[in-house]
Amino acid sequence: MEVIKKLNEMQTRVSSIKERKETIGFVPTMGALHEGHISLMHNARDENDKLIVSIFVNPTQFDNGDDFKSYPRQLDKDIEIAESINVDIVFVPYAEELFKEGFCTYVLQTKLTEPLCGKFRPGHFKGVTTIMTKLFNIIKPDRAYLGQKDYQQNIVIKRLVRDLNMMIDIKVLPTVRDKDGLACSSRNRHLNPQERSNALCIYNSLLKAKSMYSSSIKDANKIIEEMTSIIKSEEYTRIDYVSIVNPNTLEDVSCINGKAVATVAVRVGDTRLIDNIILE
Amino acid sequence: MEVIKKLNEMQTRVSSIKERKETIGFVPTMGALHEGHISLMHNARDENDKLIVSIFVNPTQFDNGDDFKSYPRQLDKDIEIAESINVDIVFVPYAEELFKEGFCTYVLQTKLTEPLCGKFRPGHFKGVTTIMTKLFNIIKPDRAYLGQKDYQQNIVIKRLVRDLNMMIDIKVLPTVRDKDGLACSSRNRHLNPQERSNALCIYNSLLKAKSMYSSSIKDANKIIEEMTSIIKSEEYTRIDYVSIVNPNTLEDVSCINGKAVATVAVRVGDTRLIDNIILE
Repeated sequence: MEVIKKLNEMQTRVSSIKERKETIGFVPTMGALHEGHISLMHNARDENDKLIVSIFVNPTQFDNGDDFKSYPRQLDKDIEIAESINVDIVFVPYAEELFKEGFCTYVLQTKLTEPLCGKFRPGHFKGVTTIMTKLFNIIKPDRAYLGQKDYQQNIVIKRLVRDLNMMIDIKVLPTVRDKDGLACSSRNRHLNPQERSNALCIYNSLLKAKSMYSSSIKDANKIIEEMTSIIKSEEYTRIDYVSIVNPNTLEDVSCINGKAVATVAVRVGDTRLIDNIILE
Repeated sequence: MEVIKKLNEMQTRVSSIKERKETIGFVPTMGALHEGHISLMHNARDENDKLIVSIFVNPTQFDNGDDFKSYPRQLDKDIEIAESINVDIVFVPYAEELFKEGFCTYVLQTKLTEPLCGKFRPGHFKGVTTIMTKLFNIIKPDRAYLGQKDYQQNIVIKRLVRDLNMMIDIKVLPTVRDKDGLACSSRNRHLNPQERSNALCIYNSLLKAKSMYSSSIKDANKIIEEMTSIIKSEEYTRIDYVSIVNPNTLEDVSCINGKAVATVAVRVGDTRLIDNIILE
């Protein structure tokens, strides 16, 4: 396995892979790899000739400097994990090389970035769409792999790829959960034992949504009310949003007709967690 | 020569060119081809295996609906011209295919897009950077060819390519002029004979700048004053700007130290013309 840090080295490697007409699977990450990432890597490994994983804690997508500083970092362990999955290249770019002096070009998406996390994290999605465009241009993947936990981000990236005519197949794989249901997230390691236990209310609220919908309750507000009360019943939780939205437009749904997504963002202590479940 | 209008057909053709490891030269145009475009095409023809020319009057880069409507269009003649230069593919995309329902992703550049034309044409450069990103992603050129007349646009596109990590070599070729010095532009055909004659003041003002600089006048304001008076002495002219700027940052220069660009935008009658000259 190669670990590449320099931009031009990465570009040269990609050119030579392309020369040999090998396909590239890409798993973009911010490191602190967990079972969710591992599932993405296994899938990407199976479906492509080469597997490239990027590890870059992108400063431009953090709306909060403290969150950026405290975001978990464990490069040596991440490299070990990648090696065990037969990753071909781990790309760990330097921020100074990605955002050179005079950097002033951004990719901005409207509409899909406005509700949900967009309301609570100003500038976040601009950071995401910009870095993803850059990484896609550097890695030139045939397929990129994302986890369903980041539902809004996935919809945004799919639209990015469509709107800017990138020829990349975006694969979204199911959220991987701990045994008790908490969605895997690098941020989970910030939770103390009490908070870790409280955080279960998130998945429980999603299960409640699913079961209400299964018993033919289509009134989104009724479901949101129940979900909210499950989350509020736990100490140290603070809700950013509990929403039921159209799976494509991310607009609020009042009466669920066909598919919808129940999606939540909750702060447990100081840690912001997101999760979602599809109602269909 | 092929004329391709459908997006997926263009993408398939590009893939097959890339499969054969042929290089692609790209000349993006809004049609109404003139000697300036022809010079770009000849250069691109010489330096690449395949030459692709796009013709697309991009609605999103017009800040003014009338300007968009009246922009000259002559597809049949353009195709004839391209054929005579041995262009391989003319790409004439449909606006509805490039800007599909729900389109909401834009490429936005700050700094370099703010002065000069950016001040007078709000939204123009956002349209340019967005369409260029899309066309670059569709055509996947090794080299793209632009004319020096659009100085600010070229600087913006070079920065776009650098900032978003596109592997494209941007070639800027000298402005082609009519015998009397007027820079070739599709918009020239809007000028009536009187205006065509008045428009010469633009190039004359640039020549004046060059000669003053050659005789060691470094005070930008002094030069701008002379240029302005040359342009104002002609009837039916209205100045948007007459500026002397740093060739890389496009910031105003007060004392010319080394290289600078004298650049003007002037409305002659209803037609907005731009031109520039490098002082070095």
